[in-house]
Amino acid sequence: MTAPEVRPLPADSVGLLEGLTTTRAIRRYTGDLMPPEVLRDILFAATRAASGSNRQPFRFIVLIDGPRAVAARRLLGERAREIWAGKGQREGYRSDAEPRSAKARMARTMAEYVGGFESVPVVVLTCLVRYREPAPMEGASVYPACQNLLLAARALGYGGVMTGFHRGIEPQLSELLSVPAEAFIAATITLGRPQGGHGPVRRRPLAELVFEDTWGSAPEWALDPPGTAYTAAGPPARPSATAG
Amino acid sequence: MTAPEVRPLPADSVGLLEGLTTTRAIRRYTGDLMPPEVLRDILFAATRAASGSNRQPFRFIVLIDGPRAVAARRLLGERAREIWAGKGQREGYRSDAEPRSAKARMARTMAEYVGGFESVPVVVLTCLVRYREPAPMEGASVYPACQNLLLAARALGYGGVMTGFHRGIEPQLSELLSVPAEAFIAATITLGRPQGGHGPVRRRPLAELVFEDTWGSAPEWALDPPGTAYTAAGPPARPSATAG
Repeated sequence: MTAPEVRPLPADSVGLLEGLTTTRAIRRYTGDLMPPEVLRDILFAATRAASGSNRQPFRFIVLIDGPRAVAARRLLGERAREIWAGKGQREGYRSDAEPRSAKARMARTMAEYVGGFESVPVVVLTCLVRYREPAPMEGASVYPACQNLLLAARALGYGGVMTGFHRGIEPQLSELLSVPAEAFIAATITLGRPQGGHGPVRRRPLAELVFEDTWGSAPEWALDPPGTAYTAAGPPARPSATAG
Repeated sequence: MTAPEVRPLPADSVGLLEGLTTTRAIRRYTGDLMPPEVLRDILFAATRAASGSNRQPFRFIVLIDGPRAVAARRLLGERAREIWAGKGQREGYRSDAEPRSAKARMARTMAEYVGGFESVPVVVLTCLVRYREPAPMEGASVYPACQNLLLAARALGYGGVMTGFHRGIEPQLSELLSVPAEAFIAATITLGRPQGGHGPVRRRPLAELVFEDTWGSAPEWALDPPGTAYTAAGPPARPSATAG
């Protein structure tokens, strides 16, 4: 018996810097399933991330349509709606107030997202197997892998978002999925083929986030490239920086 | 007066999936400085990462050769040597025992790295501005940005590594660099132009890290692509999976 032929990774159609600077949270998906070879490529990229002492404490539970997957997705969907209802109310996300505002758009997107959570194409629970007491820096050994996962999805024409919808139901999920006691559920990630238009990545201007030599002191070189889109926290409008 | 012309991001020479699967920790650097435009591109990519509710709580303090940078790098260098001396002894990293073993190689690399810490081209302290009590998932809002930073360095022909060399000296660093009390120093990252040969990314086989439907159950599709290099935790050698 000879070993089956294993696929190499596909060729890239997105550049590295391009992917890093333009990948955004994707919460609306087409009904397309994700083929196993795409999942292999995405998870392979996730597991190539660095971790402290290269211990690789990250584990990924892929939830598609297996019996426990369906039950876990139901739990997560209920919890997602609960969490979003609380947050939406607390933080004033209303789809009817100022319907064209960023908050109203987010309210509509989130309502649709959590409302249909059970039918997102793929859910991945990322776990961290702890070998010592919880510490603030432990996330350095699991969230880089989550970021690789989301970037790899983008590389292959898919998209996703990292959420905390497992928070508050860890005991039920851990029992259902046989997650051992030493493993912390670090993220609930949904993945699928992006549907419809998605806006640009919006962030605060670089000079508000990057300092040199001391806190608060933006370096002269902290200039956003032409075409940068800003969050409300940043300047709503400013003269074109490319006008020569 | 017209605004100065701001550079666009450079074109990519590395693919996204390629970068994700082959970027490794770089601890040996040439003496090359990092031009401001390269730092701009790297930090811009870092700050495009997602964070919870897009709050962007990450801040980056770039330490090059300013007066406080030099003092901070000295503190970090001393602490790096202290941390490594303890870890090297505890975990049996010795450069003389089995000189060709992975541990002996790592011992030599680390001795050189921490010994010359003050002269690495660039040190970046990544901080997380907390708006609520510390929580295990807070790292999801800062370590994806650190991963973007390291991947962007790779995209531009540089490399780096994320460390915890600030641990134990946070009060001194925070005072020196005016880091506010609500900001947690999440990572000490060094960057530079890679020197000499660097081996491939080595990880455990995919089937040890990825499960479907339940913990411990590897999906059939969890097959490493041809050419995958493994850590000692993985299989030291196995028959070629590409033999058809």
